Amino acid sequence: MLYKRNNPQLNKNGELIHLLSTEGLSKDILTHILDTASSFVSVNDREVKKVPLLRGKSVFNLFFENSTRTRTTFDIAATRLSADVYTLDIARSSASKGESLLDTIANLSAMAADIFVVRHSESGAPYLIAQHVAPHVHVVNAGDGRHAHPTQALLDMYTIRHYKKDFANLTVAIVGDVLHSRVARSDIHALTTLGCAEVRVVGPKTLVPADMAQMGVRVFNNLEEGIKDCDVVIMLRLQNERMSGALLPSSQEYFESFGLTPEKLQLAKPDAIVMHPGPINRGVEIDSAVVDGQQSVILPQVTFGIAVRMAVMSIVAGNEA
Amino acid sequence: MLYKRNNPQLNKNGELIHLLSTEGLSKDILTHILDTASSFVSVNDREVKKVPLLRGKSVFNLFFENSTRTRTTFDIAATRLSADVYTLDIARSSASKGESLLDTIANLSAMAADIFVVRHSESGAPYLIAQHVAPHVHVVNAGDGRHAHPTQALLDMYTIRHYKKDFANLTVAIVGDVLHSRVARSDIHALTTLGCAEVRVVGPKTLVPADMAQMGVRVFNNLEEGIKDCDVVIMLRLQNERMSGALLPSSQEYFESFGLTPEKLQLAKPDAIVMHPGPINRGVEIDSAVVDGQQSVILPQVTFGIAVRMAVMSIVAGNEA
Amino acid sequence: MLYKRNNPQLNKNGELIHLLSTEGLSKDILTHILDTASSFVSVNDREVKKVPLLRGKSVFNLFFENSTRTRTTFDIAATRLSADVYTLDIARSSASKGESLLDTIANLSAMAADIFVVRHSESGAPYLIAQHVAPHVHVVNAGDGRHAHPTQALLDMYTIRHYKKDFANLTVAIVGDVLHSRVARSDIHALTTLGCAEVRVVGPKTLVPADMAQMGVRVFNNLEEGIKDCDVVIMLRLQNERMSGALLPSSQEYFESFGLTPEKLQLAKPDAIVMHPGPINRGVEIDSAVVDGQQSVILPQVTFGIAVRMAVMSIVAGNEA
Repeated sequence: MLYKRNNPQLNKNGELIHLLSTEGLSKDILTHILDTASSFVSVNDREVKKVPLLRGKSVFNLFFENSTRTRTTFDIAATRLSADVYTLDIARSSASKGESLLDTIANLSAMAADIFVVRHSESGAPYLIAQHVAPHVHVVNAGDGRHAHPTQALLDMYTIRHYKKDFANLTVAIVGDVLHSRVARSDIHALTTLGCAEVRVVGPKTLVPADMAQMGVRVFNNLEEGIKDCDVVIMLRLQNERMSGALLPSSQEYFESFGLTPEKLQLAKPDAIVMHPGPINRGVEIDSAVVDGQQSVILPQVTFGIAVRMAVMSIVAGNEA
Repeated sequence: MLYKRNNPQLNKNGELIHLLSTEGLSKDILTHILDTASSFVSVNDREVKKVPLLRGKSVFNLFFENSTRTRTTFDIAATRLSADVYTLDIARSSASKGESLLDTIANLSAMAADIFVVRHSESGAPYLIAQHVAPHVHVVNAGDGRHAHPTQALLDMYTIRHYKKDFANLTVAIVGDVLHSRVARSDIHALTTLGCAEVRVVGPKTLVPADMAQMGVRVFNNLEEGIKDCDVVIMLRLQNERMSGALLPSSQEYFESFGLTPEKLQLAKPDAIVMHPGPINRGVEIDSAVVDGQQSVILPQVTFGIAVRMAVMSIVAGNEA
Repeated sequence: MLYKRNNPQLNKNGELIHLLSTEGLSKDILTHILDTASSFVSVNDREVKKVPLLRGKSVFNLFFENSTRTRTTFDIAATRLSADVYTLDIARSSASKGESLLDTIANLSAMAADIFVVRHSESGAPYLIAQHVAPHVHVVNAGDGRHAHPTQALLDMYTIRHYKKDFANLTVAIVGDVLHSRVARSDIHALTTLGCAEVRVVGPKTLVPADMAQMGVRVFNNLEEGIKDCDVVIMLRLQNERMSGALLPSSQEYFESFGLTPEKLQLAKPDAIVMHPGPINRGVEIDSAVVDGQQSVILPQVTFGIAVRMAVMSIVAGNEA
């Protein structure tokens, strides 16, 4: 509910000036982002164009939490827009001299920044930053705590639309460690707004948060039931690194109950696609044969992710606060 | 006195080829740097232009001591000059394989470098490097030990000139931990050369070096007396991280005696400006209300710092050894 | 013998698409690389040109093993070709989340990469990567385990050809810690292919591998004999950091037996050149007077290394898989 009232993502004209969450964004805005992304993808769907849209602009990658993969995709996206990119390993720097988050942000704003890409372990940090930056700076959330990961959700939407054309009749299952996933929540908001017929959440009781039913999704604690007749299966990474002892299932146990194998995948529709935000734990949440199989669209997701991040940055930078 | 005789910063024609210290630079050279910086600042004083002055040139950021903030400002400045920028985290690299400083420098020189930006914990390191680089390489000191931080001093001069127009009738107070400050010494040399009427140093006896009086400044050990009727108050960061137990005042004690509050600031002239090199310890050397108040020019300092570093790099790169 | 059969470095037309090793490359290909490199070096042999050959292309520096020096030279070379360069400190990133090497590579391939520059502590890792990358990606080995360091060998060949014009009548001695050197093996293959009259390997028995004689080189365990009448002396770094106790000679002992001094160098031809891949241990494998002497071409090696890496990247990027 964090961004519901007084949505700081939009200016007075309802245009996107920050991307903080897929929650609170209209179908029109989501569709505009996907359409814009589409213009950056080459005809063969494998390459992303270089365009001069942000020439002379400065993009700051502010990673308060380490994430080489996401940082690199934003770096590439900004470079393909011809922006100048600066990456700050914030965790190792000014914070150690006791400067506050907002002073760091104010300082960086004064360095003629245009876009801040923010990754933070605390939910809501990008929201706080967006409220305090100078009017010429736009904030893009690259993942905050367990809260949101909107560009991942947008690339998921891009991928689904690419393969399934229309959301209206789709059943989408989000499977696995929903509890620790910022992707799951952002996906659910986006799917609902885009008119997806049915969104399911599938996982062990310990890894499905209690508020899921209230978000308008169907909850399943059994994989076979959960993926039956689905059009899209989004597998989530088992985030062992975020779990303490009691909660943590063994990889073997987890795979037996919730690992996606070729056999289980046959319960979904024959033309179902399989997605995963990466990095993949092969043999934990997903079988290698599925990752490398015909229904997997995991690598196209990565390519589309560059285009979607280009779209987001070029859109926010084009709108005035 | 380090650079007094046989000034390695100048070529035979008296032109700037390295920036190592504000000491030994003439009023003409300092003024030329400030004027050049001025040409890079936009009309609204908030943006810094991108220009092609160093296109095809290579700037190496050599940080033997970590400093994300200063490194980033040089990175931005070089990029705005259209140079190619390479950042080397020297502390973690070749040094660990036992290579000497001068061998590292000779190697980097051979990689077609044009400018070395050097930050080092040892006073005099940039001077040593400037004496040994190939003739086509220019050295810019980004802070060496307790010795000098000339680009910070130059951006301070730029800021003072911007708000006060002329140095001739000014009283400037430099307040706080002068002992550990490379900024203070560089500021004093620049202010004196530029004809500042009176330079004061204000701080507890334990944090003001004995040689200050010899530098032509007035020393005060009381904040109220020190800032009385000043035009400019430059607050210094209390460098707790450089102090051992006996010397270190508690933050609370320090703030009571030398922290700049709105009340104490009223002792200065009504139109006095307050500066700080950052990062700020709010509630230690300066009250939050002053940082965020009308007289604070701390954030404009950051913006001007980009332009001043652009000026220094474009000037040295344009002169032949 | 790793790359001998079914050479993955070449496409069906025999053109270079990956650079993994100097082994298995023909004299024509090696000469083409050296000729191409030559076109990037300025007339005074001290500068390397910036050219638009890889404009819009993406070069990924994948350093699974830390090496600031080599990483920087590839960064510079790619930038001088006008490519976009992304550096990934792989050791600190996705690997820590348990992703496999090939999954990391597949992901990065999907990010519209054109060239992977790979440094890895395991011999053969770049070969494995080259076998699995998408057809549009080219792999350049920047050093793998003890196996190969082909761009270092190529810059050595460039340097020798620059000073000696022709390989036909040359005697070249490679001196020192051959056991831990990936450079030595790559040099031997290249020298043999280019028609060098005699290649010698000189070092203590403990640091010369048993298979050296089979590679067509003469082995000497005495420095004076080994460098007698040589045209080129390539000194290797004593890699203390790779040795365990029993094997490790004291620096003093080593210098007395195998350190190159001005006196010993007089045993080589009067116009012999001295090379070293760096970083140098002065006073261990080589005397300072030799490093800084008239016969040393160690710094030109560094400059030529940029041009050679530009040549390799522009050639592989221009050929189709």
